[in-house]
Amino acid sequence: METEGKGIQCKAAVAWEPGKPFSIEEVEVAPPKAHEVRIKIIASGVCHTDWTFLHEVGKTMNPQPFPVILGHEGAGVVESVGPGVTKMSKGDKVIPLIVPKTNLCTKNWETNQKCLLADGTSRITCKNQQIYQFIGVSTFSEYTVVPEDNVTKIHPDAPLDKVCLLGCGVSTGYGAAVNTGKVESGSTCAVFGLGAVGLAAVMGCKAAGASRIIAVDINPDKSEIAKTFGATEFVNPKDHSKPIQEVLRELSNGGVDFSLECVGNVGVMRAAVEACTPAGGVCVMVGWTRMGELTLVSEDILLGKTLKGSYFDSWKSAEAVPKLVQDYMSGKLLLDEFVTHRLTLDQVNQAFDLMITGKSIRTVIKM
Amino acid sequence: METEGKGIQCKAAVAWEPGKPFSIEEVEVAPPKAHEVRIKIIASGVCHTDWTFLHEVGKTMNPQPFPVILGHEGAGVVESVGPGVTKMSKGDKVIPLIVPKTNLCTKNWETNQKCLLADGTSRITCKNQQIYQFIGVSTFSEYTVVPEDNVTKIHPDAPLDKVCLLGCGVSTGYGAAVNTGKVESGSTCAVFGLGAVGLAAVMGCKAAGASRIIAVDINPDKSEIAKTFGATEFVNPKDHSKPIQEVLRELSNGGVDFSLECVGNVGVMRAAVEACTPAGGVCVMVGWTRMGELTLVSEDILLGKTLKGSYFDSWKSAEAVPKLVQDYMSGKLLLDEFVTHRLTLDQVNQAFDLMITGKSIRTVIKM
Repeated sequence: METEGKGIQCKAAVAWEPGKPFSIEEVEVAPPKAHEVRIKIIASGVCHTDWTFLHEVGKTMNPQPFPVILGHEGAGVVESVGPGVTKMSKGDKVIPLIVPKTNLCTKNWETNQKCLLADGTSRITCKNQQIYQFIGVSTFSEYTVVPEDNVTKIHPDAPLDKVCLLGCGVSTGYGAAVNTGKVESGSTCAVFGLGAVGLAAVMGCKAAGASRIIAVDINPDKSEIAKTFGATEFVNPKDHSKPIQEVLRELSNGGVDFSLECVGNVGVMRAAVEACTPAGGVCVMVGWTRMGELTLVSEDILLGKTLKGSYFDSWKSAEAVPKLVQDYMSGKLLLDEFVTHRLTLDQVNQAFDLMITGKSIRTVIKM
Repeated sequence: METEGKGIQCKAAVAWEPGKPFSIEEVEVAPPKAHEVRIKIIASGVCHTDWTFLHEVGKTMNPQPFPVILGHEGAGVVESVGPGVTKMSKGDKVIPLIVPKTNLCTKNWETNQKCLLADGTSRITCKNQQIYQFIGVSTFSEYTVVPEDNVTKIHPDAPLDKVCLLGCGVSTGYGAAVNTGKVESGSTCAVFGLGAVGLAAVMGCKAAGASRIIAVDINPDKSEIAKTFGATEFVNPKDHSKPIQEVLRELSNGGVDFSLECVGNVGVMRAAVEACTPAGGVCVMVGWTRMGELTLVSEDILLGKTLKGSYFDSWKSAEAVPKLVQDYMSGKLLLDEFVTHRLTLDQVNQAFDLMITGKSIRTVIKM
């Protein structure tokens, strides 16, 4: 059946209101407008940011962008393209990007933040109601429409149920180490929080040649998996009566060279800053939160530390993601090891339960 | 009279206790020990950090390193050297450094923080009492002894009553822009606080090729001098009902590329972070304070901003300072324009009054 130019009826996981489970609904996905691409999503990772949006952001944003289709770590195949699209065509394997082309263009970010496409509307409706598209993407849907600038074409042989993880979590963690932090060969690193992002950060520190990689998590089960990705040591803050920053300073003769916060908690952020050496330590903030204010001892920064935010890890994503796909295909980058669970779209609420209870590293939803 | 190997009686400004004016006293400066240099100080700038130490740090450090001789922005001539010193000799013009050789070696920093030399004592006594040496330097004295690693030899024709400013303030501000912040050509910058450090930061932004340099101060008299150093605009927060960060974001289409905090106030630090563009803005913390905690909206960093501390501006000071001296001598760097007052050592308390009341940019004390 030819679908080009027509609306497509398909299944999607709709979040009707903040803090509530998703409903699997029949939605209609309109054809792409100029410079947009309609994608048949094949697989989507479940990322903590989706959960954060549903449970935290809803409380602080006004007006609340609900109902919304979440999911932003997907991979799929181009179904059709709108007028003016030249860089991809029907049948291309693609990964939607959460950051358009040149990393963090403010204007696009603002539109994405509103969960709308460039023309101020979305392409998805359900029960005659416009459905917002999370960060302009929405991968928890069998089909979606995204701006061509937010899509990158990848190798035609790439396994979409693995490389979907490069749409957000793995690229974010890996890039936070190699791009944002610019971890140096021979350095000592600490990575806080060993979800997919943190484990990818560990892998990035290893790729950058760090000689010590101290993985930190309150879940003792993370020790083994952290070592799979390259951690040389594992520290559980619960095993120590001292604050974790003190433990790390003692372990590293005064402070680590690089610390990466992959939790998204202002208390952990502070610990990550304080764990760095005053002699030029670099702390990269990777975990995302809108909750709370970050309070630092000003002297900690004044003495020559650097604090860097890492939004999708400073990749120029349109060029970088296809290269990461090839790195995976040539065995330079681990991806399979992140996938602990495979579920279907109907099971999306279960995927979130697994994540929040710390039972999964990454669940991949196959459409 | 041959002084080598003997104690030297001379005048110095001694701070006997926190928060009190200096007393001009007769002190004895012992000969240099191994790897130390005794310097006849010719001129010393008066820096806000001296005041901070006297008025703020005294309250929080325990044990309080008093009595102490402050002053750390000086220039002088080598009077004699201790055993093992090979890189300089009697008669050399030198600038004592507040950061030893490779910038911010933790160990030296710790000793300096205790206001002692490497052997755990000082070389200066007064009334049979050991006098602490501020950051291991003490330039408010006709003579001082410092480790050879904390001294750099400069051009023999350098005018010491000008280049002394390169011992701290001017290098700090200038380097915060060109080294720490790595201000880019064509960028928009904001500099908060137009004391000597801030004005030097303006000069650094100009040298780096910034196309807009917005100078910010609550003292309207700073507008003209800021333009002398390269500011393209001047904004007085008192002229606006909105917070200064909002004013700057509006002036710069969403945020400046680089902001430099040269005040040392946690409220201004926060404004400097918030004035930066979320698209990769860099905020450099130059002003020094131990008072208060810096509270940030965590999202401000998470969205891709960078916050950098600048301790003596990331210069590798032993090599950099002599080059800055030559830049001044060849007309590339302004120094004369910073010097608004010239006083004698007896007038040191007056120099501090001028600084605190905002009447001076820099006072140079001639010994």
